[in-house]
Amino acid sequence: MKKLKRSARLVEMTQYLLSRPHTVIPLTTFAERYGAAKSSISEDLAIIKEVFEEGGSGELHTLAGAAGGVKWIPKVSRELALAFAERLSTQLAQPDRILPGEYLYMSDLLGQPALMNEAGKIFATAFGNMNIDVVMTVETKGIPLAYATGAQLNLPVVLVRRDHQATEGSAVSINYVSGSHKSLHTMSLSRRAMREHSRVLIVDDFMKAGGTVQGMIDLLAEFNATVAGVGVLVESGSVDSEERLLTDYISLAKLTAVDAKSRHISVKPGNYFDL
Amino acid sequence: MKKLKRSARLVEMTQYLLSRPHTVIPLTTFAERYGAAKSSISEDLAIIKEVFEEGGSGELHTLAGAAGGVKWIPKVSRELALAFAERLSTQLAQPDRILPGEYLYMSDLLGQPALMNEAGKIFATAFGNMNIDVVMTVETKGIPLAYATGAQLNLPVVLVRRDHQATEGSAVSINYVSGSHKSLHTMSLSRRAMREHSRVLIVDDFMKAGGTVQGMIDLLAEFNATVAGVGVLVESGSVDSEERLLTDYISLAKLTAVDAKSRHISVKPGNYFDL
Repeated sequence: MKKLKRSARLVEMTQYLLSRPHTVIPLTTFAERYGAAKSSISEDLAIIKEVFEEGGSGELHTLAGAAGGVKWIPKVSRELALAFAERLSTQLAQPDRILPGEYLYMSDLLGQPALMNEAGKIFATAFGNMNIDVVMTVETKGIPLAYATGAQLNLPVVLVRRDHQATEGSAVSINYVSGSHKSLHTMSLSRRAMREHSRVLIVDDFMKAGGTVQGMIDLLAEFNATVAGVGVLVESGSVDSEERLLTDYISLAKLTAVDAKSRHISVKPGNYFDL
Repeated sequence: MKKLKRSARLVEMTQYLLSRPHTVIPLTTFAERYGAAKSSISEDLAIIKEVFEEGGSGELHTLAGAAGGVKWIPKVSRELALAFAERLSTQLAQPDRILPGEYLYMSDLLGQPALMNEAGKIFATAFGNMNIDVVMTVETKGIPLAYATGAQLNLPVVLVRRDHQATEGSAVSINYVSGSHKSLHTMSLSRRAMREHSRVLIVDDFMKAGGTVQGMIDLLAEFNATVAGVGVLVESGSVDSEERLLTDYISLAKLTAVDAKSRHISVKPGNYFDL
């Protein structure tokens, strides 16, 4: 217990809440922590709630009753999410990103933790109400996004491997067909990594026809787990609708054209903003 | 500009600072943001500084002069870092982690974003003064730790691949010998990923003899970049000193024995706590 003035207590409580998203914190925790009356704590929380919610950074939920307390739900407003998607689209459209085979160099963007955290917060906003148990991705480039999302939702992250690894113990492996190249690949998930009946949010950095994501969905079936949502940072729009394996997903940016000859890339905000 | 009462302003400023570690924020930014006098902002910052520093969560540096402002430096005190390492050691010592070949199952721990963030904050404390330009790791399992460290230090993360990928453009590949098995492997880094003369912090989840880390150091030489520090979450202590390829590194936990027969694992806090 440390006695603090209200001003200091507000700073401390703000820090405490921000580092514990999606976690119920009983009022008594604060009351004991600061040796303050619950009524004072409630007043402090009202101030914090107002600042958080007016600033558009999320919601502070108050839970009544014996198990009462507060829960910090980080959110990104539609407006700020769209501004993020537009910045991302502009950066993705830089012509020097074009690689042989009309691949796009994205590693500099994926290598920015702050950008990943912002995208993760948007996914946490989109999927926060879906009773998700675990966030899943397949190695490699979607990993930072999956962790950023997991951190905001206070959920564990499960990593699907391309090969069976000695450090994963017994694993379930499946074959899947990549939608765009029609080639056969393998992915593998440790038996211990996923509980039965888990509700899973699949996250990845890039999706073309959706073969890799469909592979992850097939893998989940082996664990009697279900997909609760799919979020990708960038989707390729240059896929025929009959080629597309997946229709139920959210994307933050959509690549509509990559032309190596004219060095032209078109990117627009993803389907998350279509509604 | 939004006029806020001091209490609300303290909450807002706390949130603003915490989301921008290792970033200089001029006092004028706050003064304009809240339509407040610089003297009021200075008083607010003094309150925030006291709470942050007494709580042991980091330092709020005040920079004088024309480029004056404040900089939030997240830190973990030695005491809290040791408590973290002891919790981690206890969890790692659970006998059911032993896998064939005396590997240890760690994916459940590596899959906890909050645990990764805590470890990343300890690395940020250890390496925060070393003028680092970029954090580097090799796929796969060290990635969340590298991003957690990069986020706390406000630095980009560069990802070394095991194979050359079409999405990375031209790359430099090297061969390296894993210290424990003496087998030959390849790693590859995109030409665009690393500027010349960068000072690099190498982060990984596990180190045995140090062959993989030594491979990354050799790879850096190809980019005229230098290693400024090496941080690993867990090191294996079962390596002969003549086998060990690397002596200058920090570990948070040290695996001193894994015995599959007796199902016994010994783990203690790493060399970061030896000093």
